[in-house]
Amino acid sequence: MSISVAPDGTEYNFPTERENDEEIKNLINITKKQRKKGRQIVVVQGMGFVGSVMAAVVADAEDKEGNSPYFVHGHDLVTTRSFWKIPTINKGTPPVSADDPEISQIFPRTVKKKQTLRATWQKYVYKLVDYVIVDIQLDAIKPELGAAEKGYVDLNAFKKGIKTIGKHIKPECLILVETTVPPGTCTNVIKPILEEEFEERGINSKQNPPLIAHSYERVMPGKNYVNSIRNFWRTFSGINKESADKAEEFLENVLDTENFPIKRLNQTNASELAKVLENSYRATNIALMKEWAIMAEEIGVNLFDVIESIKVRKGTHDNMLNPSLGVGGYCLTKDPVLANWSARSIFELPNHLPFAINAVNINDEMPMHTMEIIEKVYPHLENVRVSILGVSYHKDVADTRHSPTKTLWDRLMAKDALINVHDPYVEIWHELGDMQVPKDLKEVLTETKVLVFAVGHREYLELEPKKVLQYAENLSLVVDCSNFLTDRKIKEYLKAGCEVRGIGKGHIDYLKSQI
Amino acid sequence: MSISVAPDGTEYNFPTERENDEEIKNLINITKKQRKKGRQIVVVQGMGFVGSVMAAVVADAEDKEGNSPYFVHGHDLVTTRSFWKIPTINKGTPPVSADDPEISQIFPRTVKKKQTLRATWQKYVYKLVDYVIVDIQLDAIKPELGAAEKGYVDLNAFKKGIKTIGKHIKPECLILVETTVPPGTCTNVIKPILEEEFEERGINSKQNPPLIAHSYERVMPGKNYVNSIRNFWRTFSGINKESADKAEEFLENVLDTENFPIKRLNQTNASELAKVLENSYRATNIALMKEWAIMAEEIGVNLFDVIESIKVRKGTHDNMLNPSLGVGGYCLTKDPVLANWSARSIFELPNHLPFAINAVNINDEMPMHTMEIIEKVYPHLENVRVSILGVSYHKDVADTRHSPTKTLWDRLMAKDALINVHDPYVEIWHELGDMQVPKDLKEVLTETKVLVFAVGHREYLELEPKKVLQYAENLSLVVDCSNFLTDRKIKEYLKAGCEVRGIGKGHIDYLKSQI
Repeated sequence: MSISVAPDGTEYNFPTERENDEEIKNLINITKKQRKKGRQIVVVQGMGFVGSVMAAVVADAEDKEGNSPYFVHGHDLVTTRSFWKIPTINKGTPPVSADDPEISQIFPRTVKKKQTLRATWQKYVYKLVDYVIVDIQLDAIKPELGAAEKGYVDLNAFKKGIKTIGKHIKPECLILVETTVPPGTCTNVIKPILEEEFEERGINSKQNPPLIAHSYERVMPGKNYVNSIRNFWRTFSGINKESADKAEEFLENVLDTENFPIKRLNQTNASELAKVLENSYRATNIALMKEWAIMAEEIGVNLFDVIESIKVRKGTHDNMLNPSLGVGGYCLTKDPVLANWSARSIFELPNHLPFAINAVNINDEMPMHTMEIIEKVYPHLENVRVSILGVSYHKDVADTRHSPTKTLWDRLMAKDALINVHDPYVEIWHELGDMQVPKDLKEVLTETKVLVFAVGHREYLELEPKKVLQYAENLSLVVDCSNFLTDRKIKEYLKAGCEVRGIGKGHIDYLKSQI
Repeated sequence: MSISVAPDGTEYNFPTERENDEEIKNLINITKKQRKKGRQIVVVQGMGFVGSVMAAVVADAEDKEGNSPYFVHGHDLVTTRSFWKIPTINKGTPPVSADDPEISQIFPRTVKKKQTLRATWQKYVYKLVDYVIVDIQLDAIKPELGAAEKGYVDLNAFKKGIKTIGKHIKPECLILVETTVPPGTCTNVIKPILEEEFEERGINSKQNPPLIAHSYERVMPGKNYVNSIRNFWRTFSGINKESADKAEEFLENVLDTENFPIKRLNQTNASELAKVLENSYRATNIALMKEWAIMAEEIGVNLFDVIESIKVRKGTHDNMLNPSLGVGGYCLTKDPVLANWSARSIFELPNHLPFAINAVNINDEMPMHTMEIIEKVYPHLENVRVSILGVSYHKDVADTRHSPTKTLWDRLMAKDALINVHDPYVEIWHELGDMQVPKDLKEVLTETKVLVFAVGHREYLELEPKKVLQYAENLSLVVDCSNFLTDRKIKEYLKAGCEVRGIGKGHIDYLKSQI
């Protein structure tokens, strides 16, 4: 297949030999012009969730006089999955969908108005640049559920990307790695590859050591997508002083470091460790809550009231997290695994990170608790119509990566339940064979016996029991996965004869006694 | 032995038969007078670390007109360990030592000036009161290190205290439990005891159900001791509406609930769970850091810089905790065990709380990592002089309860090391056979080969390497347990030929390279 289809259905043919050659000439011309304007040239490697927006943010940067200090090339591969992004960006259209209105402005502004951003598939671009920003996606592979300790990282694609860089760049080009990597990657993986490529090109890598820096992003999907790159704290480091100095200058030009000061660490190992630790910390705090949710359910306690009463302790306890259906997304599910794999495979440490890995396993298996809740009421789910509200991994976003709803779906399938899903944000559920996600709540709820409030989308928080009961005439069990239902709503379902259960909501019998 | 000795050496004989009788008359007279002043009568059961200060805070309360709404009896037992507190308090002297200057003021103010506080050993007092505040200490017993899952609670003394209450109180008296208890204690332990005692006294416990409320304290030793009771958030609950209402009124009269609003929960199980969960959350966050500290040490990273760079994320990551010698004190070491025991023994839940219990085990065993650090440099510690700076469980306090220094001491003893300790706050180390703790740093450091910075007391943070090296001429290893040494100080020790190691301080080789 030599075609790549954009989400809007537009088809793009892969470039021809002639187009490949022309693109090189284009790149040389553009770069020459941009240099004349006094701009430095940047390439962002990987036009994904982070890279495409980072490219736009760099292209949007202005100095005090309002001039753009950087011209940015966005680079991605000629593959079915990625190629469409290049012509899409070059039209000024965002290659990502987002709730953040800034997304739909920053791409036309940088591509069309400022003309400081352009995407390309041509590797030749790496010859022309002063900075490479690496935003290649790097996944952890967990061979089975509940065995994150066996998780590993397949570095092949990543290494290939770094090799491409090493084959082309000027020795004085800075490589700024933004990808979340296993600690040790800059020094133990990237540096040797670049040195080897330099040597092959006849560059003495002792006299011209590759310049490598690391600065991880903290991108959040949702309304603050762009802000989470530009107006947010950054930690960075370099493999030597020159790399760190160059990275510092670059970040200061691009980000709002006045309001969000950047923090320099002494080793790339340190900033690599910081990223995976900060997500391991969150993963651990969620994992802790599972056993307390179960206890609360058993002893008649509404855990969410308890958590609220604890979180008043600002600075010591206000980071507590709620239990939920499970943990999804791209960071909390994999970063402890990256760290553990690094400890095992890069540094050969004996004990690795068992506490953080245990947290990942608990989180990955958390949807099983919702299954238990359902099966206590419906021990036989065969042919029982179950509807799940929400398939994304987080409230009010369309992102379905590692969504816990998928795990719940799998379990329900294994029990031969009849499953409906609904999500106001997700159009296509890629992880479920590109399934189209229904939008008509009425249609979804008809015939529903078991209703699972899985994700806290605004629409679901606002959903009134009256409406639900009108659509779902046969409703008999409502499951609340993370405090989406108020006591008033729970009572309304109970009054209508529905059973209600919820994670951490042990006080439902108490509510029954009040009806 | 019928004598009780105060910390200042004063000896108090146990009361005679005649004194016992006279005290009853005293109590009746005092109460009569106080009732005439329109005051309600309170007894605080247990004049320990929490109870004595809570008694003073209640006695110090004033209404809008500046009148004292409560007269407070402080009650404790006629035992060698406790009796001295009664005459001590009645002199207006605090029965606790503390950094908080308010402690030395609130006792004379309430006992002498306002005359709203008086201590007694007479159980008869329970007949006379409107409120009983239960502050009996309740310990978790962990039969062996690293096996907190086998931990249990011996409720006998606690039950005896509750029985005493039940034998005497008026049925309309409110019992407000402040002791940290296993969840379920109010409904499954206290309530049945009181009902039984009521029935034995001919009181129909159906018509006169005992009034029981629960509101846990969040007392912190140190400079804010009194504030941590009076000016701090409270969660409370009652076993029925009347109990909760009465507790609410009382807490509003006594605490600054305007600035620190109180939070009412629907079940006593809920507020009991809240206390043990909030400490389990902290224990878990410390436990997580151990494995990351070890990794940081192995891969050349200063974990404290990493943590600092993560904690800029206010509201989500700023509650991260530092690794250290270990976890001590009275809360984090036992509260997860109370909760786990409750799950197992009161509610008979199958899986209990393995994640929180694992955290306790990791924390209890944390001093072993400092041993590993020492033994890497000194595989044979026999006759090696090791000095430990700090024996309390927390910086700038004198509290040695469950101090991790004790665990380190035990391990060093087992290796036949020669051990010195030092602490500017602790006079007597009770947990080490009432050992007198040396105060002369020079004397302690002479002959020291291995110096362990165990506790972050101000004096140790200010200690200059020059001075240490002057005192300890043979010093060869300095161990920093929790980022007490700056890079500048580490370099000074290194320059002097000392080896330096530290928990989470993997960057010492990097510092060496800079010398």
